[in-house]
Parts: sequence; structure tokens; C-alpha cells
Amino acid sequence: TRETTYNFNAGPSALPTVVLERAQAQLLDFEGNGMSIMEMSHRGKVYEAVHNAAIERMRKLYNIPEDYEVIFMQGGASLQFSMIPMNFLSEGETAGYVMSGSWSQKALKEAKMQGVAYEVASSKDNQFKNIPMDWNVQDNTRYIHMTSNNTIYGTQFKDIPEVNVPLIADMSSDIMSKPVDVSKFAMIYAGAQKNLGPSGVTVVIVKKDFLETAKEENPTVLQYKTHADSNSLYHTPPTFGIYMLGEVLKWIEEQGGLEAVDRQNEMKAGLIYDVIDASEGFYYGHADKDSRSLMNITFRVADEALEKQFLAEAAEAGFVGLNGHRSVGGCRASAYNAVPVAACEALATFMKEFQAKHA
Amino acid sequence: TRETTYNFNAGPSALPTVVLERAQAQLLDFEGNGMSIMEMSHRGKVYEAVHNAAIERMRKLYNIPEDYEVIFMQGGASLQFSMIPMNFLSEGETAGYVMSGSWSQKALKEAKMQGVAYEVASSKDNQFKNIPMDWNVQDNTRYIHMTSNNTIYGTQFKDIPEVNVPLIADMSSDIMSKPVDVSKFAMIYAGAQKNLGPSGVTVVIVKKDFLETAKEENPTVLQYKTHADSNSLYHTPPTFGIYMLGEVLKWIEEQGGLEAVDRQNEMKAGLIYDVIDASEGFYYGHADKDSRSLMNITFRVADEALEKQFLAEAAEAGFVGLNGHRSVGGCRASAYNAVPVAACEALATFMKEFQAKHA
Ligand SMILES: Cc1ncc(COP(=O)(O)O)c(C=O)c1O
Ligand SMILES: Cc1ncc(COP(=O)(O)O)c(C=O)c1O
Ligand SMILES: [Mg+2]
Ligand SMILES: [Mg+2]
Ligand SMILES: [Mg+2]
Ligand SMILES: [Mg+2]
Repeated sequence: TRETTYNFNAGPSALPTVVLERAQAQLLDFEGNGMSIMEMSHRGKVYEAVHNAAIERMRKLYNIPEDYEVIFMQGGASLQFSMIPMNFLSEGETAGYVMSGSWSQKALKEAKMQGVAYEVASSKDNQFKNIPMDWNVQDNTRYIHMTSNNTIYGTQFKDIPEVNVPLIADMSSDIMSKPVDVSKFAMIYAGAQKNLGPSGVTVVIVKKDFLETAKEENPTVLQYKTHADSNSLYHTPPTFGIYMLGEVLKWIEEQGGLEAVDRQNEMKAGLIYDVIDASEGFYYGHADKDSRSLMNITFRVADEALEKQFLAEAAEAGFVGLNGHRSVGGCRASAYNAVPVAACEALATFMKEFQAKHA
Repeated sequence: TRETTYNFNAGPSALPTVVLERAQAQLLDFEGNGMSIMEMSHRGKVYEAVHNAAIERMRKLYNIPEDYEVIFMQGGASLQFSMIPMNFLSEGETAGYVMSGSWSQKALKEAKMQGVAYEVASSKDNQFKNIPMDWNVQDNTRYIHMTSNNTIYGTQFKDIPEVNVPLIADMSSDIMSKPVDVSKFAMIYAGAQKNLGPSGVTVVIVKKDFLETAKEENPTVLQYKTHADSNSLYHTPPTFGIYMLGEVLKWIEEQGGLEAVDRQNEMKAGLIYDVIDASEGFYYGHADKDSRSLMNITFRVADEALEKQFLAEAAEAGFVGLNGHRSVGGCRASAYNAVPVAACEALATFMKEFQAKHA
């Protein structure tokens, strides 16, 4: 049952129970219209209201300035890795990438397939344990790309360096987990499947004057302008996903907004980091302390054989998704917005008891 | 309520009630796993089984030969319009497009943005009332693109001309509505939101030896090969949409498979075409009789003022989605697989009664 299952999946991941309950109640008949929201035309009044309300909630919660567009797309963050250089990188220009892990590496690889790009900074030599804050920006840099939270290594930006070129952030794994000064960014993007809803929706927040500098010879649906100019209705959007995203945003409002959610996230991650730090080396964290993510808590059990047992016993006890990413191993607890405090308390307790038994 | 609502939406459109009921029952706890299918990792065993079962069902229902790949993607049919020439059209080659309406026009436009393309045939001069069967294939044609069912004008291919170049079909609005000889096509694609599930999933069925001729310099997620080589799990797929698609395929099996669904579709469309044909000109169909679609029944009320009243009274009576596409006006009843016989009977009766009152 949901009560005995603690969902720490890295993405797709936990959704608020009340959001699922509301979706369930309306699944066959949305607001008395005799149809599911999934069965409605994206050009009809009912869906359009849902669509526009989701955009408005996002604007309000993130305090998005008027001169930014909010766009819903398909294709995940991975398509953004390609669309960004397609739209913004021309001959004679270069793009700077801040390397904080595998997602930045993938983003850089796609940029290099299409033009010239370089590393502004990297923590690779430190096994991506820290967020690289010392940036080397070259002349003629069209934009700088950063990953605000590294889902795999469990690191997260605390502050954003001041730069005077357009800054683009992949916020896939910490979007809407805390207040952000959107005006610092030319563009923010994220797959919805961690903090915002089911997979299949990508959110793009982009400054209008930056958008206007995009190239216009790209395929129609691969131009941001196409989606911005049509209120994300150029073609059929992923309507159910956008509906769910709107419901998740409503839930964030009900929690008291992003300040409240942020406090809650600090508390939740703190519960687990505290166990790690008090374990006298039985557990150790992967990330350097000043780069620790509140979203993805990556750690190891020092004794490798015990680590296997830890993961096996945790799975038995109802903890889901605690295996580290297949590329790095170890353990990872993803404590996104919708993961309840009680789940983090349960994990902290389980970790302490496991240590007591085996230390 | 669902009982008093007749959903004739063109897409997104009606889903089988039993599919929605099953999804509803499991929405918070999928098969006893304590989580929604939406909250599960796409790398986990539970989701992978759902994913693979959907592919298997598609293979079985469509009798897809071993040497074809079945791929799930994002981006709708519109992204396919661009990906096809990106992947398959090189310098020195040309691509032929069969023009049966606005969707073919959009597909051709994207091809021309990227290379050389021409019209193999067109019914434009006949207001797209018929399916053009007389094809003029030029030398050096890389592929021919056709739209198997025109959603807007309500026309549908009955037979496929024999050609000796790779044939690609946009089947967005008639996929899985009847048996198809897949081996006649190099590639078939469709957005899911008409016959297969919610919007946000694109199905691509592609012959392996054709796939191998694709260019390899495209952005990673814009190469078919990327998705084929990773069983559509290169990055996060739209998991809930694929789950729903699998449930719709299961429902098709329960109906007796594609032959049975085809018979049902003929019967359903026949109910409405019969009223049109017996109306002595009160109603008239848009499509030529031999090109009529079983999926989208396009018609007019001869008297324009009465047509407005017809649409208004129909809406009052619980009929949804009967307005023609905003680009052409008139009336359109989309009777996809999941639209029940009872809905078509109700519409036929309503049309007869409306005529009796106003003729
Ligand atoms: C930071 C980050 N960027 C990009 C991605 C890729 O997103 P998608 O699978 O939606 O393409 C992920 C997925 O986990 C991620 O965590
Ligand atoms: C035949 C056909 N092709 C393509 C499309 C566009 O599909 P999408 O909106 O998923 O991009 C449609 C949508 O109605 C269609 O009917
Ligand atoms: Mg992932
Ligand atoms: Mg990274
Ligand atoms: Mg449409
Ligand atoms: Mg067409």
C-alpha cells in the first residue's frame, strides 16, 4: 500500500497523494463535462482553461517577470540539450558549459555536435563531488549552460555566479523546490518528472529578448518561437501531463508556496544528512558538504558487502529507489517536493537501526 | 455524465470507458506496488514490463514482421514531419509527398525546409475531396510520404498503390482502426491521441534496413536509431501515456482484434453516412464517396443558417466535437475505435430528427 511504501525514486518520482486522489476522482468525468480531461480537444474551452491556469500558477509561484515566456513542450530535457545550440549557437560563436556531472556532459556533447562549445569550469577531477564556482568565460560566448542540481552525483548550486552573458539552467531535478530569481537567467528548462508531474512535459521559461535572437531556419517544432507564439498550442500538447502539472502547482500553493516547500526540503534532507554525518564513517556522503543537494542525497555504506545488504533490507522494508544511478552505484535518496517528511523520518530511522545492528 | 455525453472529438478523443476505469482503480497503487505507475522509475521492473507488453501487443495486433522496430517517442506527428527528412533526405535526393490535405501540406513544408521535395499527386484542385491515386514518382526519390487518413477533410486510403521506393505513412488518425499490411511500408507513424491513448506518445514502426540508411549526424534524440537501439528508453519516456496505450491495445484484443474493430467502425460510420445519403441534399458529405473516411465523417447542412442551429442544438443534446476543423468549418464526427456504436446511433437519430423538424 501507499502507506507502507516510501518512494525515493529519482525520476519519474513521487507525486502528492492528494493530487493523485483528485485526478482519480475526475478521471472519467472532468468537472462534470462527461469526459476525461484526456479525451478533450486541446482547442476546447475546458482544456484551454486548465492549460492557462497551469501557466499562470507557474508565473505566480516563481515570480516570473512579464518579459519571460512560459512554454510547455515534449521531448524531455534531452531534447533541450539539442534545441539550445540549434536555436542559439551560430558560426563564429562559442557556448560555455559548466560541468557538474553526466547531465552537463550530455548537454555539452549535443552542443559540440552542432557548433563550438567549451568547458567554463568542471569538477570532474574531484569526481563531481562539488559544484564548480570558478568560471572561465571566453570571449564571444553566446550563452553559458549550467545544471542547477546534479541528479546523479547529488550536488546543487547554492548561489549563481554573476556573469554578463545569457545564462541557461537545466533545472530538471530542482525546479520549483525553492524560490529562484528567474531574472538572473536567459532561460530555465526542466523535465516535469521529478518535482512537477508525470514524465512527458518539458517546461521552458525564456526571456523574450533572448528568444528573439534565435535562429529561424530550424524545423518548425524545434523553434522555441513556434511554441511561444502559439501559447504552447501549435500542435497537440501532452494534455494530461499539463493538467497534472497544474494540480501539482496548486498543491505547492496549498503548502504555502516555495518558501514553505524549501524549508520543508531542508528539513527532510537534513534528517538524512544528519544520520550520515553522525555515523562516524559507517555511512559517508558523496558530495562535498557545501555542494550537497537537498533533492538527491547520495551516500555510501563504507563496507561494500554491507552496502548490498543495506539496499536489500531497505527494499524489504518498503523503501523504493534507493539504488544509486546505474552509472555510479552506491545509494541515493531522492527527496523531491512530494516526498513526505514521514518518509524521510522513516529512512533516517532505518539507517540508524541498520548501523546499530551492523556497526 | 459520461452516459449523456457523446464524444466525437477529433483528437485528443474518446477513450474506452473500461480503460479509464481500470486506470482509475490503479491510479494511486499500481498492481499492489504502493505507487502510481506515474511515480515509478522507467528503469524499474514494473514499468519495463508495462512498456514491453505495449510493444508486444502492438506487434501482435498489427502482425508486425520481425524486421521492423516499434518505437515510442515524444513530439507528436508534427515532430515526425521534421525528423523524416532530417534522417532520410540527403543532398542529391528528392522526397515525394502525396497531397491529400493540410497534414500532407505541413509534412511537405518541413521536408522543403531541409531538402528537395515534390508532389507525387494532389487532390487540392478538388478541394481535397478525394484520395489521389495516380502517383507520379520521379527518379532519385528517397521515399514517398502519404497521410493514410485525412483528419480534416475526412478522406481515407482504401488501397495502397504499389511503388518501388520506400513508403512512409502518417497514420495518426486511422492507426489500429483496421488490419494493415505493415510490410508494404518502410515506416508508419502516428500520434497516439486519436485511436491509441492520451496525447504525448508517438508510435513509430520502421523497417530495420530502412532505418539503417538514416543519417548519423543529427542530434541524438532526433535520430530514430537512438530510440530503436535503446528499446525507447534512451531517456525518460512518457510513461503514463505508454501505459494507457498498452491498456487501449488490450481493449482492442478484447474486442476481438483489428478485424472486429474494423467491422464495428464500418458499421458506425455507415450509420451516419446513411443519414447523409438519404437526406436528399439536406445534408451533404464533403468527401467523394469512394474516398470517405471511416474515422472522420465530414459533412455540411446545406442551409448555412440551419448549420449553425444544427451545431448549437447538437451541443445542447450532449454531442461534443461536431464542429469541423477551424480551417474548413462545417461539421465533422470523429468516430474513432473507442466511440461506442450507441453514440453513432444517437447521432444518426438526432440528424434525422433535426431534418424532420427543419426540412
Ligand atoms: C539534471 C537532468 N537533466 C536532464 C535529464 C534528462 O531528462 P529527460 O529524461 O526528460 O530527457 C535528467 C533526467 O534524469 C536530469 O536529472
Ligand atoms: C493526420 C494527422 N497528422 C498529424 C497531426 C499532428 O499531430 P500532433 O498534433 O501530434 O503533432 C494530426 C493531428 O490532428 C493529424 O490528424
Ligand atoms: Mg533518470
Ligand atoms: Mg550535470
Ligand atoms: Mg487536431
Ligand atoms: Mg493530409
